[in-house]
Amino acid sequence: MPLTPARTMSGVLELLPLDQIAFQHMLDTIRRHYERFGFLPVETPAIEYSDVLLTKTGGETERQLYFVQSTGALEREDRPELALRFDLTVPLARYVAEHERALSFPFRRYQIQRVYRGERAQRGRFREFYQCDIDVIGKDSLSIRHDAEIPALIYSVFHELNIGDFTIQLNHRKLMCGYFEKLGVMDAIWQMRVLREVDKLDKQGMDAVRKTLVGEAFGLSAGVVEKILDFVQIRSASFEDACDKLDALGPGPQSLEQGRADLKQVLGIIKDFGVPETHVALNLSIARGLDYYTGTVYETMLNEHPQIGSICSGGRYDNLAARYTRSHLPGVGISIGLTRLYWQLREVGLVDTACSTVDVLVTQMDETQLATYMELASELRGAGINTEVVMEGSKLGKQLKYADRAGIRFALMLGEDEMARGVVTVKDLRRNDQFEVSRCELIKMLRVELEQTAAMG
Amino acid sequence: MPLTPARTMSGVLELLPLDQIAFQHMLDTIRRHYERFGFLPVETPAIEYSDVLLTKTGGETERQLYFVQSTGALEREDRPELALRFDLTVPLARYVAEHERALSFPFRRYQIQRVYRGERAQRGRFREFYQCDIDVIGKDSLSIRHDAEIPALIYSVFHELNIGDFTIQLNHRKLMCGYFEKLGVMDAIWQMRVLREVDKLDKQGMDAVRKTLVGEAFGLSAGVVEKILDFVQIRSASFEDACDKLDALGPGPQSLEQGRADLKQVLGIIKDFGVPETHVALNLSIARGLDYYTGTVYETMLNEHPQIGSICSGGRYDNLAARYTRSHLPGVGISIGLTRLYWQLREVGLVDTACSTVDVLVTQMDETQLATYMELASELRGAGINTEVVMEGSKLGKQLKYADRAGIRFALMLGEDEMARGVVTVKDLRRNDQFEVSRCELIKMLRVELEQTAAMG
Repeated sequence: MPLTPARTMSGVLELLPLDQIAFQHMLDTIRRHYERFGFLPVETPAIEYSDVLLTKTGGETERQLYFVQSTGALEREDRPELALRFDLTVPLARYVAEHERALSFPFRRYQIQRVYRGERAQRGRFREFYQCDIDVIGKDSLSIRHDAEIPALIYSVFHELNIGDFTIQLNHRKLMCGYFEKLGVMDAIWQMRVLREVDKLDKQGMDAVRKTLVGEAFGLSAGVVEKILDFVQIRSASFEDACDKLDALGPGPQSLEQGRADLKQVLGIIKDFGVPETHVALNLSIARGLDYYTGTVYETMLNEHPQIGSICSGGRYDNLAARYTRSHLPGVGISIGLTRLYWQLREVGLVDTACSTVDVLVTQMDETQLATYMELASELRGAGINTEVVMEGSKLGKQLKYADRAGIRFALMLGEDEMARGVVTVKDLRRNDQFEVSRCELIKMLRVELEQTAAMG
Repeated sequence: MPLTPARTMSGVLELLPLDQIAFQHMLDTIRRHYERFGFLPVETPAIEYSDVLLTKTGGETERQLYFVQSTGALEREDRPELALRFDLTVPLARYVAEHERALSFPFRRYQIQRVYRGERAQRGRFREFYQCDIDVIGKDSLSIRHDAEIPALIYSVFHELNIGDFTIQLNHRKLMCGYFEKLGVMDAIWQMRVLREVDKLDKQGMDAVRKTLVGEAFGLSAGVVEKILDFVQIRSASFEDACDKLDALGPGPQSLEQGRADLKQVLGIIKDFGVPETHVALNLSIARGLDYYTGTVYETMLNEHPQIGSICSGGRYDNLAARYTRSHLPGVGISIGLTRLYWQLREVGLVDTACSTVDVLVTQMDETQLATYMELASELRGAGINTEVVMEGSKLGKQLKYADRAGIRFALMLGEDEMARGVVTVKDLRRNDQFEVSRCELIKMLRVELEQTAAMG
């Protein structure tokens, strides 16, 4: 029979076990910190009704929808009524609207699941990838204080992930629009258009954006455009510097004043949460798309790897679920696109293949002693030590090579001689060290070693 | 604008947060034990190529495939080349064949992910559900000893899940076929047909099966049929009883002898692993489908809830990935269908809504002291205590009610009076107890309480 080639579609990241362990370690860390900050887990089905996912307007993401059809539906040639989620925000909106009466508000949820996008295949673009989201949803209103807790959480997550220095950058949509208004761009739609151009700074550069803004389409004066470009170049070096720079914008219309007051309050509370000011900065160029966010916006950059772009982004929105409910549900949240982040970190050498989750290999020195090895394995497992036991006899050297290749740290050897003396020979493959330990001290010794290593990260 | 109804398709289990926590707790327990036994994590994409998932013969499960099409493919009216996985075994076969040269054998992997089946909607049937699988894959050969480690792992998982007494039931496909051969059913195809009838015992009852076997289609003598029915009713009460009952089958053809020798060895090693014999039994009626398994087969039953059926099943197979590779890859594995199991356990009252993952709510007694509350929250989080802090002021009674409703155990109160005296008032909502503790003892006290509770499950 001819073989079917074993393959997956391009645009998915399938990992070998030791890489999967490294990835899983990042996922677990993120989840732990999300829970530490009092967020509750939610999971939603990957398959949603298409009309729940699709809006009338149909943005970029919606054109990348993967439709789903059962065999029966396919045969009937129905228009697909099901599709795979393309993010976790739309399912959150649907979830909150559907279960509104059963939830407590402010509703603090985290969700760590895969999402699906029919992207064109391209290096570093994924069609199936993890998002790790948190959101706080208020009913009718939500204090700006929640906007300050989010950066404290971002700090906590990336501090522990230990992938180098990072800066949590803040901006405020009302501050931007208010400042444009102050400069004479009065109309909200034109403010948005200016925002959209400003959002291209990273990609197109200063000169191109300047040219567009003074050009026919916008017709802004050179003086106004310079003020806009000066504005979007504002970065702060400390909490005090941030407040000074906000003050230096001078008085302005209500939305500018509102944005400034919000940002100052957010910065103050971030400080109360103990986030070091080295890790927080204003960046008045951040716009984060156009339609969705209405207040605070966040991006997080690795200081040494700006080319990676934002590793964690989000912001404040006015109303989460207007499509599904008449309730007014303001919220604030962030998302970490972990599949892409992991891939990028691996590209620049910031994450490596992990050691095995298996701590110990019980080798088979003597086949007649198998029962002893099984008992030893059970004892180790009962003590919380992840243990594999060699079931098929082979030369000891081959067994040790297996342990080494598999990334297992300790190999235990227990032959006739060791048994007679009540000891076990332990080979520490990481330290390339070998020693004997008495049978009754074994578990204590292994636990101490493993806990020390875990504590050191 | 008219609202879109917020809803999900039938056949998915979407949980409220406290139920999600209970579910997550089961997932985490299963994963921990899988890792404890030295299995490595693998995740595969939910979307696979259809030709990878579909065999030529096309069983029941394959007719339930969900096809996937991007917007572009849909417009081109292509035949869908992508589909959602319907189990984790086919993706494992594809994974092992694809990455064979990078893997160490025996390859021990666990995989905990969702699978998708276009089932007809029916109470207790799910279209999207979790499977929690482990498999050991050998290259060319795989010792029968691995078949004995699987029940040790099953015991470990369900012992900790603490959902009542259970029995791990064993049978062996060769023992069954060999015994039928001994009774004169010589042809392998006819042995399979007898097996298929025997597999219906649970649903159709003894009389119906007897009628079929003595009927025209099979034409077996009444005596032979009684022997078959006696055979499939064999259950053992202890390891010794199991061996006795195997011996009592008398001598037989090679496959019977092989099955018997295998089962005896498996039972011996299960004992070495320390599994109590109260939790293990022969059940010679277990067939587990027809095409796949070739040796040991497992089912696990809850003693008090036999109507739930097997909660964890699997067995030994000859060759995992014959469709994708010429390598010979025998294996043994099990699967827990956790979504269905969780749902069933909830139906019979064996799992309940969990307490919150949030341990502590820092209340807001005095808005002017917000900074103190944020600092306290950061301190608690830094000490590993999951903490939510009230951001929006309201009456204390309302805050406590929120904590209670949200399943949060401790509410901390820190007003002017407490601050002056350097204490915190702690309300333990689970014990309905309230007491003061000095500010510097707070974390220690909370940790002790939380660890004690965790240790008690």
